[in-house]
Amino acid sequence: MNEWRSWPLARWSEVAEAAKQHVLTSTRDKAGHIASSLGAAELTVALHGVLDTPNDVLIWDVGHQAYIHKVLTGRADVFAANRTAGGPSGFPRRSESPFDAWGVGHSSTALSAAVGFARADQALGTQRHRVAVVGDGAMTGGMLFEALNDGGGWGADVLLVINDNGMAIEENVGALHRGGPNAYRGLVESLGWAWIDGDVDGHDVPAVVSALERALALRGPRVLHVRTRRPSVAELGLDESAPGPDHFQSHFAVALASLAASDTRIHALTAAMAPGCSLDVVRAQFPDRVHDVGIAEPHCLTAAAAMAAAGLRPVVNFYSTFSQRALDQWIHDVALQKLPVILCLDRAGMVGEDGATHHGVFDLAMFRAVPHTAIWAPRDGAALREALEEALAYGGPS
Amino acid sequence: MNEWRSWPLARWSEVAEAAKQHVLTSTRDKAGHIASSLGAAELTVALHGVLDTPNDVLIWDVGHQAYIHKVLTGRADVFAANRTAGGPSGFPRRSESPFDAWGVGHSSTALSAAVGFARADQALGTQRHRVAVVGDGAMTGGMLFEALNDGGGWGADVLLVINDNGMAIEENVGALHRGGPNAYRGLVESLGWAWIDGDVDGHDVPAVVSALERALALRGPRVLHVRTRRPSVAELGLDESAPGPDHFQSHFAVALASLAASDTRIHALTAAMAPGCSLDVVRAQFPDRVHDVGIAEPHCLTAAAAMAAAGLRPVVNFYSTFSQRALDQWIHDVALQKLPVILCLDRAGMVGEDGATHHGVFDLAMFRAVPHTAIWAPRDGAALREALEEALAYGGPS
Repeated sequence: MNEWRSWPLARWSEVAEAAKQHVLTSTRDKAGHIASSLGAAELTVALHGVLDTPNDVLIWDVGHQAYIHKVLTGRADVFAANRTAGGPSGFPRRSESPFDAWGVGHSSTALSAAVGFARADQALGTQRHRVAVVGDGAMTGGMLFEALNDGGGWGADVLLVINDNGMAIEENVGALHRGGPNAYRGLVESLGWAWIDGDVDGHDVPAVVSALERALALRGPRVLHVRTRRPSVAELGLDESAPGPDHFQSHFAVALASLAASDTRIHALTAAMAPGCSLDVVRAQFPDRVHDVGIAEPHCLTAAAAMAAAGLRPVVNFYSTFSQRALDQWIHDVALQKLPVILCLDRAGMVGEDGATHHGVFDLAMFRAVPHTAIWAPRDGAALREALEEALAYGGPS
Repeated sequence: MNEWRSWPLARWSEVAEAAKQHVLTSTRDKAGHIASSLGAAELTVALHGVLDTPNDVLIWDVGHQAYIHKVLTGRADVFAANRTAGGPSGFPRRSESPFDAWGVGHSSTALSAAVGFARADQALGTQRHRVAVVGDGAMTGGMLFEALNDGGGWGADVLLVINDNGMAIEENVGALHRGGPNAYRGLVESLGWAWIDGDVDGHDVPAVVSALERALALRGPRVLHVRTRRPSVAELGLDESAPGPDHFQSHFAVALASLAASDTRIHALTAAMAPGCSLDVVRAQFPDRVHDVGIAEPHCLTAAAAMAAAGLRPVVNFYSTFSQRALDQWIHDVALQKLPVILCLDRAGMVGEDGATHHGVFDLAMFRAVPHTAIWAPRDGAALREALEEALAYGGPS
């Protein structure tokens, strides 16, 4: 399966090209997922070429970039069934392949896992490399920082590859993104990680291979910053269909925009999910009143609570599955202080092709237990609009 | 109440001294909480002296340092009833005083709140200062990073005061702590925050006042690093009673140490709570097998999950209330992957004097809903030991 690893380096870009074509021709229905993966094609080939996977631990954060990885690791034949019942998952999954060293789906977990593997390997005397590939979007999540601080503190033997394509789900936000490679370098060096290289061209296979070989020859906590470009959906000849007017999230956007027009206290917040919950539509009308804080749900909810304390009426929208990341902030900052934050959970229930990591099945169990929290589960667009109006009138945690 | 604000600066240290004496004589039963507060006495006087509180927003992270703040803000007379029914809370609480700008108890939330206040104040045209005082222990939490990245990205007009006494609940850990002021500076500058001053002597009132005045005269995201010393419990002539052998956490330590002696796969992890759950006792016997990752519950659970995937049997101990911070990691990394992580929740149920932020009342509602998760609620030390043995034998999420 990996005979190309013994080919001359000059031919590895052919492997990347062939894998890209395979992904493009076998699944065209999810342009967003495809684009992330295609941007990481050469990086993927370089990683598998240099590492001894699956013996070495290679972890893809979130997993959107991992389609090429799947095609290269024995799943090319079944790849057309990707994201359907019985087919490969849209994300790496340990039960699916030994090459999927870690199951992902939610952002910013890969480095914690790599640090955990390093701790166990040290205790057990296991010799292997541990590499976490984290997109710059996921670099806005707090867990990543916690893993940097812990791993840098005790000297975890881990290579962090930052796959910087400038994108979260939409364009990335925050100081780290704005500051570019110097900011990433300042961050990781302050936390005890060595900076191997910055702005390596992620589409130049020999350049990435050479940087990876330098990085892997060293030990301890270390970082390689690779610049890639995610192709646009239009470039790929695909289109990412916008949600129609009858879609639940479209009803949400229409209702929120109309309420915001008559109540200037309403501000909306999200954690890099504006297009996914149609807040981009609201933002087009009220550009100063929609705030994307990056993939950072805990901060998002607590900041919203403070905005409520200061006199606004924040409306937060997450996908239900990500609300699990901010339950403590709901309890501790919103509900205990009885602040008028409205939390809207998109994609509640079973989500279909996104699979197990993305089901929104815990929200009622979590939030029903929290005092002062009023809950609505609207059945259609009209009920959703009424629920928003009632929550605003209630003026408490909703 | 604040007539001392008009006194000459030279006399402000008398105010700090008097407030310290008041705290010491009116409540001596919780040495740990007292020590954090006493170390911040001069800093507290300087902050209230320079700021126009409660008009300006002053937020204390976690709140352990806020006893002097309470004494200075109208609660001296009732302070002896601190942490009892009807008396002041052990933590800042919005409903208790307008000077308590934000309710706290869990770590690393203050900067998110300050950034939220800044966002709302900008929208509403509210003119005031927003200051978050964060201990170095709380600087290990991921939310803090998320707030730095968001606030630094859009230029939030917030002053972050790092109150660096080198302590979390016990001595602080991690790369940031090890790196000292240079590391803090590198971190915050990489995230778009201006570094005003480092290592200001937090016990020298005129020095802190002068540094605060410089910092407050500026605008935008900015940081002042203040060095304080938390007095030891012995210095204060107090003793922090160790838990007796019949205490639940002592039973946990004895049981875990005896299991660890016969099963070398057992490693314990905690998020800066080793003494609170008697893991310090286990650490004395197995120094390489007890890991404190800092106040970073999400990272702690995911790292533990990876340690399990690599062949260890991690036992994690949090206080129940903090498990709310890592529910997503339990669902996404432990339970979905069916990994043998044992999560022990100390201080479940109502916790008494620690109050509303610290009750452990949501754990069953949260974890019962998660597939593959086996739950025990042992009634006594013997049942606790049996539960640990059964969980090890079960070999799944426990």
